[in-house]
Amino acid sequence: MKGGGRELVRVGDLGEFGLIKRLDAIVRESSNPRLLFGIGDDAAAWEPEPGTVTVATTDCLIEGVHFDLATTSWTDLGWKALAENLSDVAAMGCRPRYALIGLALPNDRLLEDAEALYRGFAQCGAEYNCSIVGGDTVASPIVSLHVTVVGESLPSVDEPRLLKRSSAQPGDSVAVTGPLGGSAAGLRLLQRGPGREARRAPDEALIESHLRPRPRVIVGLALVEAGIRCAIDVSDGLLADLGHICERSYVNAEIDLARIPIDPAVVAEFRSEATDFALSGGEDYELIAVGPEACLEQASTTLSELGEPALIIIGTIVSSDDHGTVQIRNADGQPLKLGRAGYEHFAIAKP
Amino acid sequence: MKGGGRELVRVGDLGEFGLIKRLDAIVRESSNPRLLFGIGDDAAAWEPEPGTVTVATTDCLIEGVHFDLATTSWTDLGWKALAENLSDVAAMGCRPRYALIGLALPNDRLLEDAEALYRGFAQCGAEYNCSIVGGDTVASPIVSLHVTVVGESLPSVDEPRLLKRSSAQPGDSVAVTGPLGGSAAGLRLLQRGPGREARRAPDEALIESHLRPRPRVIVGLALVEAGIRCAIDVSDGLLADLGHICERSYVNAEIDLARIPIDPAVVAEFRSEATDFALSGGEDYELIAVGPEACLEQASTTLSELGEPALIIIGTIVSSDDHGTVQIRNADGQPLKLGRAGYEHFAIAKP
Repeated sequence: MKGGGRELVRVGDLGEFGLIKRLDAIVRESSNPRLLFGIGDDAAAWEPEPGTVTVATTDCLIEGVHFDLATTSWTDLGWKALAENLSDVAAMGCRPRYALIGLALPNDRLLEDAEALYRGFAQCGAEYNCSIVGGDTVASPIVSLHVTVVGESLPSVDEPRLLKRSSAQPGDSVAVTGPLGGSAAGLRLLQRGPGREARRAPDEALIESHLRPRPRVIVGLALVEAGIRCAIDVSDGLLADLGHICERSYVNAEIDLARIPIDPAVVAEFRSEATDFALSGGEDYELIAVGPEACLEQASTTLSELGEPALIIIGTIVSSDDHGTVQIRNADGQPLKLGRAGYEHFAIAKP
Repeated sequence: MKGGGRELVRVGDLGEFGLIKRLDAIVRESSNPRLLFGIGDDAAAWEPEPGTVTVATTDCLIEGVHFDLATTSWTDLGWKALAENLSDVAAMGCRPRYALIGLALPNDRLLEDAEALYRGFAQCGAEYNCSIVGGDTVASPIVSLHVTVVGESLPSVDEPRLLKRSSAQPGDSVAVTGPLGGSAAGLRLLQRGPGREARRAPDEALIESHLRPRPRVIVGLALVEAGIRCAIDVSDGLLADLGHICERSYVNAEIDLARIPIDPAVVAEFRSEATDFALSGGEDYELIAVGPEACLEQASTTLSELGEPALIIIGTIVSSDDHGTVQIRNADGQPLKLGRAGYEHFAIAKP
């Protein structure tokens, strides 16, 4: 019955972001006066009462697609699955508060593994003051995790105070909250296996940044306090994630390659690949913050008072006829030729 | 390394509820003063501000375990996946407000199927004033859906007004909000296939009650308004779900078989099996309400003013030395011998 003369489009032909656009169009009409925004930012946001904003975000992690139990322990997996969602809330400038966890598991998996997983959830939740309040456990042919986190904005008297993808403006500076590339390098080390010699301390630190990312909740709140209104977290990679900001804000970005902070251990270990890892590796869970330079400096002052590292300015937002482009310039000011890489969940079909 | 002399427990040995208890124990310490309750009820509940309660619930649905695309269309699947979660919110006496949807899908699935699924979500969301505000789409070897719904209680001046599993008291009456068994009968008809003759109208209605359940949101709110404080929705089956109330409230229940409302079309079509379907079929998404008879009568009055059917009282809550038992009595007052059936997501190993 299907396919009779019609063109069959498969979800893999569209890519993740194309699919989201199509599905968003179907559900967008079910609108709500208290909804600030739905699909398309790091989290959905609504105003239960004037002056407070609730945000909520959800992530699916599938064995063999998003994680590999050969290189990740169950406890690390629990930490990371929750941390990814906390990072989305941090990227909204909000405090994570409550988490719900869906666990799909084959019947023959060991109880001790499920318990180790939940210890990871509990450790990460305790570290970031996020209570695990509910969930669902079901039998399934494959392991998958589904984490939802609900958070709250800082109170406000007039406009809600949030970090959005859509508020970048020409003339704004672009900053990152810490070194990039460590997570991709850590993954590469894990995939290589332990090797003959024991791992050195810098390698362990890279692996730790892959397995136990530390969402920038405090930094996100400091950004909001300093008047910044635009951010995203580095999950798909600097190029891809800054690209999301540019697309949603109808602007472009120009970044100086030399100013991008790359973890020194990544440079030492991976030399020629280090830049790739920093630009496109993803899963660093640092924030990209965009706003007036004075606000970014004020945020840095607050952060150093809190014992947190200062922000690192790496470029500028510009306007032009097209939008959504991130241009990287080398030390001579020449643009680098780069695809806008970054992880997409559905492979885009190549002709 | 594993299993060296230690006893290996698999999740299938524990059953779903045993597993939840073990995992709950691990995350429970991450508590929060504004959390009213976490794992163990139809939804988690917290108090963002005094006088308002937010509830949240999540469900995982796995292809081949929870749904079969041979008997369910994508649009019906979308409706039902959202409706199940709305029913959990209804069973708390709250209004569903916001939904997040996780969709895991193989790359080669058709876009039109994903769009049909989202039309089902949109239809159900529009019907029940629940906005679909976010989600995640990922590639996966199998299809699975993960729905989270956030809802709100009616406002209160002192104690939060919620329907909990744990508030049944000896002397309370037990009521249901509508006929049972229709969903299980509808599933049986679907599994039989269309057969030689076209289906008759009563069969279509049974199939509809399986594929397009109607969560009792209005009824849940009316129960709360009338002073009822204990309910659950019929997802696993009357015996199992009333059993959950009895366990959590440390009481037992006595039910008169003759008073259990069974869909007349189920009796006509399935005769001897009709009682089984009504007691243990599940997925009817009616509510079981427990409270003083006067409150239940007041709720019925409100419901009939709203054009909704009255509640049907089917039994009583009793106390005794043990707890968690649901006793069914036949017309002579004799107890029926019954296992406490009901769907568990992990098969319990038989010796």
